[in-house]
Amino acid sequence: MRLVFILSFVLMALSTNAQTSASDKKVVLVIHGGAGTILKKNMSPEKEEAYTAKLEEALKAGYGVLDSGGTSVDAVQAAINIMEDSPLFNAGKGAVYTNAETQEMDASIMNGKDKNAGAVGGVSTVKNPINAAIAVMDKSEHVLLTGEGAEEFAGKNGVEIVDTSYFRSDVRLKQLKRVQDKEKMVLDHDGDRGDVNSSEDEFNIDYIEDKKFGTVGAVALDKEGNLAAGTSTGGMTNKRYNRVGDSPIIGAGTYADNSCCGVSCTGHGEYFIRNVVAYDVCAMMNYQEVSTFVAAQRAIDKQTDFGGSGGLIALDREGNVAMPFNTAGMYRGYITEDGELFIGIYGE
Amino acid sequence: MRLVFILSFVLMALSTNAQTSASDKKVVLVIHGGAGTILKKNMSPEKEEAYTAKLEEALKAGYGVLDSGGTSVDAVQAAINIMEDSPLFNAGKGAVYTNAETQEMDASIMNGKDKNAGAVGGVSTVKNPINAAIAVMDKSEHVLLTGEGAEEFAGKNGVEIVDTSYFRSDVRLKQLKRVQDKEKMVLDHDGDRGDVNSSEDEFNIDYIEDKKFGTVGAVALDKEGNLAAGTSTGGMTNKRYNRVGDSPIIGAGTYADNSCCGVSCTGHGEYFIRNVVAYDVCAMMNYQEVSTFVAAQRAIDKQTDFGGSGGLIALDREGNVAMPFNTAGMYRGYITEDGELFIGIYGE
Repeated sequence: MRLVFILSFVLMALSTNAQTSASDKKVVLVIHGGAGTILKKNMSPEKEEAYTAKLEEALKAGYGVLDSGGTSVDAVQAAINIMEDSPLFNAGKGAVYTNAETQEMDASIMNGKDKNAGAVGGVSTVKNPINAAIAVMDKSEHVLLTGEGAEEFAGKNGVEIVDTSYFRSDVRLKQLKRVQDKEKMVLDHDGDRGDVNSSEDEFNIDYIEDKKFGTVGAVALDKEGNLAAGTSTGGMTNKRYNRVGDSPIIGAGTYADNSCCGVSCTGHGEYFIRNVVAYDVCAMMNYQEVSTFVAAQRAIDKQTDFGGSGGLIALDREGNVAMPFNTAGMYRGYITEDGELFIGIYGE
Repeated sequence: MRLVFILSFVLMALSTNAQTSASDKKVVLVIHGGAGTILKKNMSPEKEEAYTAKLEEALKAGYGVLDSGGTSVDAVQAAINIMEDSPLFNAGKGAVYTNAETQEMDASIMNGKDKNAGAVGGVSTVKNPINAAIAVMDKSEHVLLTGEGAEEFAGKNGVEIVDTSYFRSDVRLKQLKRVQDKEKMVLDHDGDRGDVNSSEDEFNIDYIEDKKFGTVGAVALDKEGNLAAGTSTGGMTNKRYNRVGDSPIIGAGTYADNSCCGVSCTGHGEYFIRNVVAYDVCAMMNYQEVSTFVAAQRAIDKQTDFGGSGGLIALDREGNVAMPFNTAGMYRGYITEDGELFIGIYGE
C-alpha cells in the first residue's frame, strides 16, 4: 500500500506559481476531475483534448456565475454540473458501476460564509448529486441524507430525478467486468487486491485507468468574499455493501470556512476519512497559522506517509490556490478574475 | 437556535477534578450515555438509580476487559454493548423511532494505534451497531458502510442480526407520537420547530426528554497504551429521509489517535459534523499543543458559540479525561486503573 508517485517537488513549483499569480489577480474558481495514475504516455491526443476541453467548459461555467455576481455555491454547482453531465468523469453521467451493476453516487457542498453544509450518500436516481447536496443544505435541517431517503427528499425539492438507465454505459460496464476479472485473478493467485499503489507494470493500462479516482470537485470565491467547496463522485468501481467514501463526508472530502479556506479532495476515500483531510487543511491554517499552500501540501504529505493516494484543491479568501497530489496526475484547473485560465493533467 | 445552558464553569471544575485524579492513577475508561436537558427536578429517584446502575455496569464491563489485558477496542465494545442492550439509552435496544416507525441506527469505532476505523449508518437489523462498525474496521477495506449493504456485511461477518421487532418499544413509539404531535402543533402555530434550544418552559417535560441526545459512547486506554473511541446511536426521533448524524462520521462524532486523544461526542449531530468536533479536539492538541482538557473545553465552547447543543468525552494516553457539555446534563462516567469510579448526570 505504499505510494509509487511522490511529486511534491513538482507540485510545489506548480502551486507556488499559482499562488504568485493569485496575489496579482484573485483566483476565483478551482476545480479537479480526479487524481490517479494519469500518465502522458498512456493518453491519446484525442482523450487529452477531450479532458482539457471539458475542464475549460466547467471553469468557464463557474466563472460566468461569479463574474455576473453569483454566489460561490452557485459557481461550484455550475462547474460540477458540467463535469457530472460528462461521461469523462466518475460523477453523475459517468459514474462507475457497483458490484451489483448499479450506480451509487455521493456528493457534498459547504458554504464558507456560515459553515452550512449538505450531502447525499448512495443515491442512484439523482442526475446531478451536487444539486441534491445543495438542496439538503438549503432546504433541510440536516447535513447528510442517504439512499432512497435522499432521493425522495431531492425529488420533493425540485432536484432532477432520472431513470437509472440514464447512467448505463457500455464503457463503464466493461470497466466493471475488467476490475472484477482482475480482482478474481489477483485474488486467485496471491491475495493481492491490485491496489492503485501496486507497481503500474503489474497491470494493463485499462486496469490502471479503472482504478483512477475520478471524483470531481470545485472551490469558488465570489465577489462578496465568500468561499464554497463541493465534491461529487460515483465512488469505487465494483464497490459493495453500500460503501460510502470521503466525498459526502464534511471534513474528509469537502470543507469550507471563510476563516481559512475551501477544500475538495479526490483519492482513496478511506484514507481521506481517517485523516479528516479537508478539515485538516483548515485546522493547520487556523491553529498553526501556515499558508493555504503549506497546509494543503502538508495534508497531502501526511496522506503519502499514511499510504493514501490522491490530491486536493484549496482556495482561500485572498485567492491563493493550492493543488497538491501524490499520484502521477490530477485533472485540475483554475480561472482568475481576469479570465486567466490554467489547466493541468500530469505531474510533470 | 441559541443555547439555554452554558455550564462551562461547572464543567471546568468537574473536568479539572477528573484531570487531577487522572494524574495520580490513569483513567482507563470514559463513557457517556447522551447529553440534553437532564435536570434533577425532572428525574425520579428510581430513574436516576436505573441510569446510575447501568452506567456503572457499562464501566465495569469495559474495565474488566482492560484489567485482564484486553484491547481498548474490546473495552469500548464491552461498555457500549451494555448501553446498547438497555432501553434507557438511544442506541441498540433503546433506539428511537424514525418518522416511518422504524429504527435507523449509526455507530463508529476508531483505533488510536493505527487510526483504522469502521462505521455503519442507517442499520435497522443489527442488534449492536458498534459490533458492525468493528467488523467493518477489522474485516473490510472500507470505513463506512450504510443501510442494507452494511447489514449484509455485518451478517456475513458474524455480527448478530435480529428481527426489527426486537427494537419495538411502546415507550419509544409514544415518544414518536408526542414529537410528531408537538411538531405539528408548533408548526401550525408559528413555524418554530420546537428545538431543544427553545426555552424549556415552552414544552412539557416529556417533550424535553424526547429531544435528549441519547447517543452512547466510550473511550478507552489499554495496558499497551493504545486509545480507542466508539459511538452508537439511534439518531433523532422522527427523523426522515435516511438522515445520518455525526455518530458514524469519523472526525465528527468519533476520533482516536494515540498522538492526541480519543473522543466520542453526543449532541445535535449536524452542528458536530459542521465543526468536525471530534477531530478538532485532536487538531488543537497537536497543532496548538494544548492539553486534552483545554482542547475538549474549547471544542464545546465553539459549539456553544455556533448554536450546537451537546457534549463530548475525551481521554489521552496519560489518562487525562475531559467531559465538557453545554447542555443541562450528560450521562457520563469514568473508571480508573485502581477501580475508582465516577458517575455524573447533571451539570451541578
